[in-house]
Amino acid sequence: MAGLFGGVEGGATHSKAVLLTGDGEVVAEVSGPSTNQWLIGLEQCAERINDMVNRAKEQAGVSVTEPLLSLGLSLSGGEQSTAVTTLTQWLQSHYPHLSDSYFISTDAAGSIATATAHGGVVLISGTGSNCRLVNPDGSEEGCGGWGHLMGDEGSAYWIAHLGVKTVFDTMDNLEVSPHSIDFVKRAMFDYFKVSDRMGLLTHLYRTFDKSNFAGFCQKIAEGAHQGDALCHHIFRKAGEVLARHILAVLPKIQSELFQEPMGLPILCVGSVWNSWDLLEEGFVSTLAQGRKIQRAFSKFTLLKLTLSSALGGASLGAQVIGRKLPLNYNNTADPFFQHTF
Amino acid sequence: MAGLFGGVEGGATHSKAVLLTGDGEVVAEVSGPSTNQWLIGLEQCAERINDMVNRAKEQAGVSVTEPLLSLGLSLSGGEQSTAVTTLTQWLQSHYPHLSDSYFISTDAAGSIATATAHGGVVLISGTGSNCRLVNPDGSEEGCGGWGHLMGDEGSAYWIAHLGVKTVFDTMDNLEVSPHSIDFVKRAMFDYFKVSDRMGLLTHLYRTFDKSNFAGFCQKIAEGAHQGDALCHHIFRKAGEVLARHILAVLPKIQSELFQEPMGLPILCVGSVWNSWDLLEEGFVSTLAQGRKIQRAFSKFTLLKLTLSSALGGASLGAQVIGRKLPLNYNNTADPFFQHTF
Repeated sequence: MAGLFGGVEGGATHSKAVLLTGDGEVVAEVSGPSTNQWLIGLEQCAERINDMVNRAKEQAGVSVTEPLLSLGLSLSGGEQSTAVTTLTQWLQSHYPHLSDSYFISTDAAGSIATATAHGGVVLISGTGSNCRLVNPDGSEEGCGGWGHLMGDEGSAYWIAHLGVKTVFDTMDNLEVSPHSIDFVKRAMFDYFKVSDRMGLLTHLYRTFDKSNFAGFCQKIAEGAHQGDALCHHIFRKAGEVLARHILAVLPKIQSELFQEPMGLPILCVGSVWNSWDLLEEGFVSTLAQGRKIQRAFSKFTLLKLTLSSALGGASLGAQVIGRKLPLNYNNTADPFFQHTF
Repeated sequence: MAGLFGGVEGGATHSKAVLLTGDGEVVAEVSGPSTNQWLIGLEQCAERINDMVNRAKEQAGVSVTEPLLSLGLSLSGGEQSTAVTTLTQWLQSHYPHLSDSYFISTDAAGSIATATAHGGVVLISGTGSNCRLVNPDGSEEGCGGWGHLMGDEGSAYWIAHLGVKTVFDTMDNLEVSPHSIDFVKRAMFDYFKVSDRMGLLTHLYRTFDKSNFAGFCQKIAEGAHQGDALCHHIFRKAGEVLARHILAVLPKIQSELFQEPMGLPILCVGSVWNSWDLLEEGFVSTLAQGRKIQRAFSKFTLLKLTLSSALGGASLGAQVIGRKLPLNYNNTADPFFQHTF
């Protein structure tokens, strides 16, 4: 087998490594634990990457002493340039047979490179939220991603918080919701297993757990599907504010990105997108304002990844040594919504 | 000396105890450490109260075995009725010579009873914020006081947060401030000793300290006094949202409270009120909407306490045994602003 190209998707809870031939054929795929160096440290991060790639080489039937042509790492936290340099040097000096070349990108860039050939926008809405534009020339711009105290707009945490805050403010007569709070109030007491607002303070402060708090978003989605007006309203607001992240990066998008047949590709990551039916109205109506900012913006497609962003990592790694891996983008991502203004 | 009346102001960091004669004359005043039973436990709280009162009795030249006629405790956290009953019973059984009767109230009720004879509204804006109405009949209503994740509107934390958030959102192009962010951005990097927004995340999450974060409010006040438009705008917003707490409790205010010569008494507690000049515009213009909610609301007076709320505690304690302590309200509180609509 001629030389292979490697890719790694490194997340906070799990990782994946893939090996591809120059034709874009996947010849090995393995999983591993977290490779987030902010959580586990540089040394262990490098060791885990080496271990995954070695297992993948064995799966592909090549010797572990045969270096890959390139290894592209798509890592959460991969935007800090000094950390990138340090990790690259560490891999080169401690694992000389791992790969002939390295390229480390953000998870946003790796995700986009998995879904499209020329870049796009990643819009994350899981427990937290974040938006990242990856331009055709590889340059990136961001909006959000500052955590629940300074951002996370449109995330599950934000949706849960807006529900709870609406109940508190209405009961206080500080800002009275035009919609009945009955459903959300009852669901909130049930979900947090408390009988009054004082009881909720423990969940907000002493035993605060962002994921657990954000989990209340699921109950608001259920309420919306049962026809509760306040729950509907909250998801509409979430759709609006998520779209505002796209408007925020719109002036920085290079014109080629609007000219694809699918229009602007927006890659949607995170569990809140499972409630797209509830977000749609607010999202589309807000994005419609984009034409005023950028006339070329007349169409967009929402995509979900169906394969690991390790593929995009491999593709970016190959680009750096002047090779183009022919990925089949019909298989890597699923376009689940398209709109023309 | 005929029987004495006692009062205690119990806070999270320090406490005060006073003894008064039936004529309202203060014959002893002592200080002590925290008597917040949520922080130090019931047993130690009771012990510290007994210790302070005994020292006060010695100062007044009466025997420690001579019980007070009444002891009124104005305690932070004094709104939970089971805790109030437990503390009262503990004091009665463990310190039989302390007092013949007890009355425990919230710090809001104690503060109001120090400033006025018939109740009023307490509006706290320190690190956090809170609003509490104490009606002439002793009934209470609240608005806010839910901490920085669910409330604290108009507090130092809220002002600091709004400043930082405005910088983040403007830099992200998510919501661009109409005012220049230059001053606040520079002041923020200086105050938190960081060089970019990433550096600030540590202060928001890993090493979060609410008081320290709220301390940035002081820099925004300085900016406003130097003429910075964004800082001015932020304090105007703080004035508005503080006033909205008053509007929230307005429908619950008993009519006698509007009929005093000073109009509605609003007792202002906390360091943010030191910047009243910056809050005034937003506060007064928002309160002007109150006439639509309550026609009798045509005048209000802002007050600051000049003496300890232990006096109000003593007054409430005396009321319970049918005695009225003639406090001189000209000495206990300073009316620093008055407005007629």
